[in-house]
Parts: sequence; C-alpha cells; structure tokens
Amino acid sequence: MTTELSQDTLAGELERARQDYAALAARGLSLDLTRGKPAPEQLDLSDDLLGLPRDLRSAADGTDVRNYGNLKGLPELREIFAEVLQVPAEQLLALGNSSLELMHDCLVHALLGVLPGAESRWVDQERVAFLCPVPGYDRHFALCERFGIEMIPVPMTSDGPDMDVVERLVAEDPAVKGIWCVPKYSNPTGVSYSDETVSRLAAMTTAAPDFRIFWDNAYAAHHLTDEQVEIADLLAACEAAGNPDRTFVFGSSSKITFAGAGVAFFGSSPANLTWLLANNAKRSIGPDKVNQLRHVLFLRDAAGVREHMARQRALLQPKFEAVQRILEAELGGTGLARWTEPKGGYFVTLEVPDGCAKEVVRRAAEAGIVLTPAGATHPHGDDPRDATIRIAPSYPGQDDLEQAMHGLTTCVRLVGYEQKQAAA
Amino acid sequence: MTTELSQDTLAGELERARQDYAALAARGLSLDLTRGKPAPEQLDLSDDLLGLPRDLRSAADGTDVRNYGNLKGLPELREIFAEVLQVPAEQLLALGNSSLELMHDCLVHALLGVLPGAESRWVDQERVAFLCPVPGYDRHFALCERFGIEMIPVPMTSDGPDMDVVERLVAEDPAVKGIWCVPKYSNPTGVSYSDETVSRLAAMTTAAPDFRIFWDNAYAAHHLTDEQVEIADLLAACEAAGNPDRTFVFGSSSKITFAGAGVAFFGSSPANLTWLLANNAKRSIGPDKVNQLRHVLFLRDAAGVREHMARQRALLQPKFEAVQRILEAELGGTGLARWTEPKGGYFVTLEVPDGCAKEVVRRAAEAGIVLTPAGATHPHGDDPRDATIRIAPSYPGQDDLEQAMHGLTTCVRLVGYEQKQAAA
Repeated sequence: MTTELSQDTLAGELERARQDYAALAARGLSLDLTRGKPAPEQLDLSDDLLGLPRDLRSAADGTDVRNYGNLKGLPELREIFAEVLQVPAEQLLALGNSSLELMHDCLVHALLGVLPGAESRWVDQERVAFLCPVPGYDRHFALCERFGIEMIPVPMTSDGPDMDVVERLVAEDPAVKGIWCVPKYSNPTGVSYSDETVSRLAAMTTAAPDFRIFWDNAYAAHHLTDEQVEIADLLAACEAAGNPDRTFVFGSSSKITFAGAGVAFFGSSPANLTWLLANNAKRSIGPDKVNQLRHVLFLRDAAGVREHMARQRALLQPKFEAVQRILEAELGGTGLARWTEPKGGYFVTLEVPDGCAKEVVRRAAEAGIVLTPAGATHPHGDDPRDATIRIAPSYPGQDDLEQAMHGLTTCVRLVGYEQKQAAA
Repeated sequence: MTTELSQDTLAGELERARQDYAALAARGLSLDLTRGKPAPEQLDLSDDLLGLPRDLRSAADGTDVRNYGNLKGLPELREIFAEVLQVPAEQLLALGNSSLELMHDCLVHALLGVLPGAESRWVDQERVAFLCPVPGYDRHFALCERFGIEMIPVPMTSDGPDMDVVERLVAEDPAVKGIWCVPKYSNPTGVSYSDETVSRLAAMTTAAPDFRIFWDNAYAAHHLTDEQVEIADLLAACEAAGNPDRTFVFGSSSKITFAGAGVAFFGSSPANLTWLLANNAKRSIGPDKVNQLRHVLFLRDAAGVREHMARQRALLQPKFEAVQRILEAELGGTGLARWTEPKGGYFVTLEVPDGCAKEVVRRAAEAGIVLTPAGATHPHGDDPRDATIRIAPSYPGQDDLEQAMHGLTTCVRLVGYEQKQAAA
C-alpha cells in the first residue's frame, strides 16, 4: 500500500487534501454510514406484509396461529428457509424477530446449562474463550464481552479465517469453546468461506468436547452481482466428519423483509435442537406464528425469496458500485488505501495506513459524516493496527452516499498525507 | 371439609359414584381442561389485527416501525398499558411477544450480571432462593428449577401470600432474592392481593440488598364480574417506602389480543430500567414495532382495552359460572371439596381431601378428561397434601366444559368416597 512520493508531490497532495477538507467541512453535511440498516425503499419492497395475513388464522396443519404453542415455528416457513440456509427443514426452527437474540440465548444456555457433549456448564469453567476472526462483527464481540468470554483474534484471509491458526488454537486449548463465523459475504469484509475452509472447520480436532461454530449466515441470499456465491454446507460437513453437534446455524429475514419485524432461524443437529427446545420451553410458550404466517404468504417459497432478493439487489447494487467507483477515483494509486469488493452482503472494508483509522473517523465526524467507530471490527473495539474502517452503504440515499464517500476519501487523503508528511 | 356420613349412606354414595364413573368412562370423551389458553372465539375478537397496520409504516414520532431500533418500544403503546399495568409510561417498556420470556431474561441477567444494589452476580453466590406462594404458577417454578434456584413455599391466604411468613423469611435469609407474585386474580386461586399485603411487600426489611418482587400482573384487566378489583400500586409503594428498585412489573396482551402474537411489557424503577435496557441492547436491535403499531391501532387507548376486555368477559363469564354451578350442584355439602370463586383471571382452584388430587386426575384422564397434573401448582410438582387441582375453563366450548366438569365432580366423588370407605 506504500508508494513513494517526492516531497514536492506530497506537499501538493496534502495542500489539495486540506483545501478539499475545508470545503467539505464548510458544507455542513449530516450523513450517516454507520450501520447495516436497510433503506426505506428496501423495506417498501415488503409492504404487502403490513396487510397480512388478512383473514387467515390457520397454518397449513390447522394450527391456530393466534394462540399459544408450537415451539418449533410454522413448518411451511421452516421449509422455505431450509433451502436458503442449507439446513433440513426438520432441523430448522423458526423463532422470534432477531437472530442476534438466538446467539445471545445459545451463549446463555451454554453458560447456565450443559451443552450436548459438555462436561459442565461454561459458567463453572475457569476460562471460556471464543475465536474471533478479524475484522468481524461488533455485536458478536459485544456478547463475548458481556459474558466475560475471552476473545482470541484470528486473521481473516480471502478464504475465511486463517485455518492454520484456527486448527492450532482449538487443538491446544480446551477453553476455546467456539468461533464466530459470518460465512457468506462476511461482515465487514464481504469474504465468503472457501470449501476447504468449511471442510477444515468441520473436521478439525478440538480440545473442547463442547466446541461450537456460531455460523451466522446473515447474508445467505444477499447477492450484489450476477455471481451468486454458494458456500459449502457446514452442517452436512460436520455430520460427515463425525462432529454432528459442532454447529449452530443462525439466520433471519431481517434484511430480506423487515429489519425490525422479520423472523429468525436456528438450525443444528437433532441433539442441539432438543437442547435448545428444552431451554426455550421454559422461557416461551411459542414464537409469533402470525408473523410467520405473514412471511409464508408473502414469500411463498424459496424461489420467492430469490425473486425478492433480486429486487433488493437492484436497490443496493448502485450504492455498492458508487462506493467502488469513488474509492477508485479518489484513492486509487495513492497508496493510501485498500478496500474490499464484496459480491454480496452489507459492508465494504476500507483499510487505511496503520495508525490512521481513528483519525479518519474523527475528521469525518467533524465534517458531518458519521462512520462506525474505528476499532469496532475488532474485539474490545481495539484494532491493533488502527487501520480498518467499515463502510455501510445501504441506508443513505444514493446522493447522500456519494457525498459521504467523497467526504470520506477526502479525510483519508488528509490524514494519510499528514502522516506521510510527519514521517518525511 | 369433613362431614360425617353413616356407613350406609357412604356405601350408597360410593355405589352411585361408581355407576356414574362407569357411565362416564363408557362415553369415550376427549376433553382438555389443562391450560389457560384463550378460546378461538376470544381470539376472534382481535381479528382486526390480522389486516393491520395496513399501509401505515410510521409511529407517532415518525419512527419507521419496519426498521431496526427503539429498544424501549413504541411510546404510544407504552402509554396505553401504563394505565392498565399501573406503571408510568416512561418507566414501562414494550418488548416481545411473551412476558414469561422477560421473567426468564431478568433471572438470566441477574445470574450473569450484577443487579442494581447487588454485591455480586447471583451465579457467584452459594445459594439463591425465591419465595413461592402456593398454590402458584407452574411456569414460575419451572424457571427456578431450570436455574437451580431454591424454592421456599409460602402459604396463600385470601389477601395474598402469608405476610408474616414472607417478612420473617426475607429478613433472616440473605439468600432469599425474590418472590413470585401474581397479584390480581392470581393463578390458580383467583386471589387478589390486599392493600395491606402490597404495602407490607413494599416496606418489609430484606436481608438481601438485591431482593426483587417478580410482579406478574398477568390478569390486570381480566375481570369476570361487575366488581372490577383494583390492587394497590406496588411500584409507587416501593418508591414511597424507600425501596424503589424492589419491583419488576410484568404484563402482556397475550390474554387480551392474541396469545401467541401479543406484546409483553416490563415496568420498574429508572435504575432497573437502565439495567435491563443495557442487557437488552447486547441481545437485540429492538422489538417488533410493527406488531406494536398494530396493537396501538387496534386498542387505541386504555379505554379501548377496557371495552375489549368487557367483550372477553362476555365470553368467559358463562364458563366460570358453569364451573361454580356444577361444583355446587354435585359437590356442595358433600364435604369432599372446596373451591375458589374468582372475580377474574383464568383459573379455579379445587381442593379435594388430602391424598386424593393425583388419583382424581388419574381417574379423570382414564375417562378422557385431561387436567393439569396434580402438584403442578407447587414447586417441583410436589403438593405435600396432594389436595390441589387447577381448573382452566377458558379453552373448551361451553358444552365440552360442562361435560368435563360433570366428569371431574364424578371423579372427586368416586375417589373421595373410596378414601372414606377405606378409612372406615
């Protein structure tokens, strides 16, 4: 990422960046690139949900969806998402409105109960640690932090987490109980796990008998290009490798239909399912089946999900293309930045020179452009190189996004050239 | 409850009971009095919800209900239930579809985090115990059992739990961290707490600094007679007594609108609210606000809830009256039973001679009438006197209910007279 500039050229570039930044600051913008929220236009695509299920009260099997019961969720909705999430319908549960809640609850139940294969409750063990591929998703890390689970960073490669590191850590340390994975169009890099990564995750030897892969397949159907990436089926691979209980699959319709009022899913082995259902049975008298029926009527089948996601893509693709275009036009060849070109998902990762990310985010905020805090992509908010910035292009309108991206690249140039100048 | 019968009279009554039971068994009934589920006709009252919120996407403050966010729930819905649940709207949260989930989660957060006023996490304490007024709600007891929380039974009186016992236990034992209360139309006795009970709960001295009253106000608006029982405001009483953080108030619309797709509420002091919101923020990106908006549009205001509950009462009252009528006609004056006459809620408690409840339930099941297992009203399913049977009249149709009640009273006569005969 480093290219040599003559002292004159550097001075000129820095001066231009300063002028651009002054002009940017003078515009008094108020733009937000922080979170992976769908834009209102994306939500509009699902507005038919607002009038459903109209006068229908019963699921296909005659269940009155308005009453208590059915801890597994509606079979017909589980059928639709079985294909999307690569989990057999009988091993998939349709639950509440948030997959993050399900991940939280799986941690809680593992801490306060005994997981299949575990020797004791996690809360009774001296140390519990999770592997955290970095950069990763801040809300995963926040759950570990909240429960005192130690986080061990693992570098991401273009094939997923560095499996040499993962295999070594899980083999030697029985306190390593889990790993966070966003296997397709990963948050925030956009990386999809290679088949080899998936098969190594399934087959690796773990010192902990109760090791779990938290497989957060949040972007399973969220393509941005004609190349619809498919990942290998981890659940099947684990079973084939003799580790059937290794995986918890999570997914949701939050970024398919309504972000606040979708349906979340949990898929796993029969033993893990029995375990979660037994815990859920103490906690709940069943999920909101009316909302599940609503989703069945609206999405119809897996093909319906794919058609719907094509409409989502039509709204998102121009935004992601603008991000690439502006990064290339303004930072290409400067040696100040690298960035990912995701084929799906919700994020672009921008890598700036070491020690610059926090300052870029600070300068952007001063100019009215709010970014995800630098460091959020790492455990405890601490990016040791201070180099990673997560860009979330989905929520702003196209014009706002383009303005924000121009502003962001200005800040990168300003901070990057200032650093070079200081070092010169 | 004991009346003397001559040996001849007893033999005659027993013979009559045996004949009635044989006739009952021959009918091959299949009836279910187990759970407090609303009947389909009750759910029909809320069917307008099925087509809402139609084309409305925004809450009163402009929030897009379809997107992420708003951990407190919609202000306009919190306003409606503030009156119903006796909690100021700013201290009331509107959350998911189940208040049981909220109780579970409060236990989890107290076990794995530090409650306001607590010295440590409950999981780090040697013993944690809850007072359990009996008879009580089996799902409360199941939560304690699941988390290894010791349960200490406290007898119910017609004014609520025996406060002399409660005050003594909480004063002398710092491991006593909580008490389960269903303060209005209690499950299963129908008892409503007197003002004196409420003020003693609020003012009592507890050895535990982090003692909490789990105030499950499940039947706040669920009247069955013209006398609409009001209970004292515990939250205000606790604040007045200098114990502002003592109470967690729970409620839901499950038995107001849809049992599976309602909205649950949590009310408490500002410190407890901050604590729960901080925990929820790690777990969730907000509740289903579309469903909350749906409820606002359907219920409109607290008066709307009252009108709606009058329609619920019109459906439930004939069922509860039939239960009383049949119990009185068949068991009145026999000395074999006592029962409660609830003015609201979902249950009637039937007390049979000591040692008879399990056998009554068994005989009823053999005749095709399923009752809540005897003992379910007590911690660990163990009613030491084996005398308490919970009757849930809401779900069956009127004819089925009346048949089931006739059958039940037959079983009580059979088992009761058999016991007398054996003792004679």
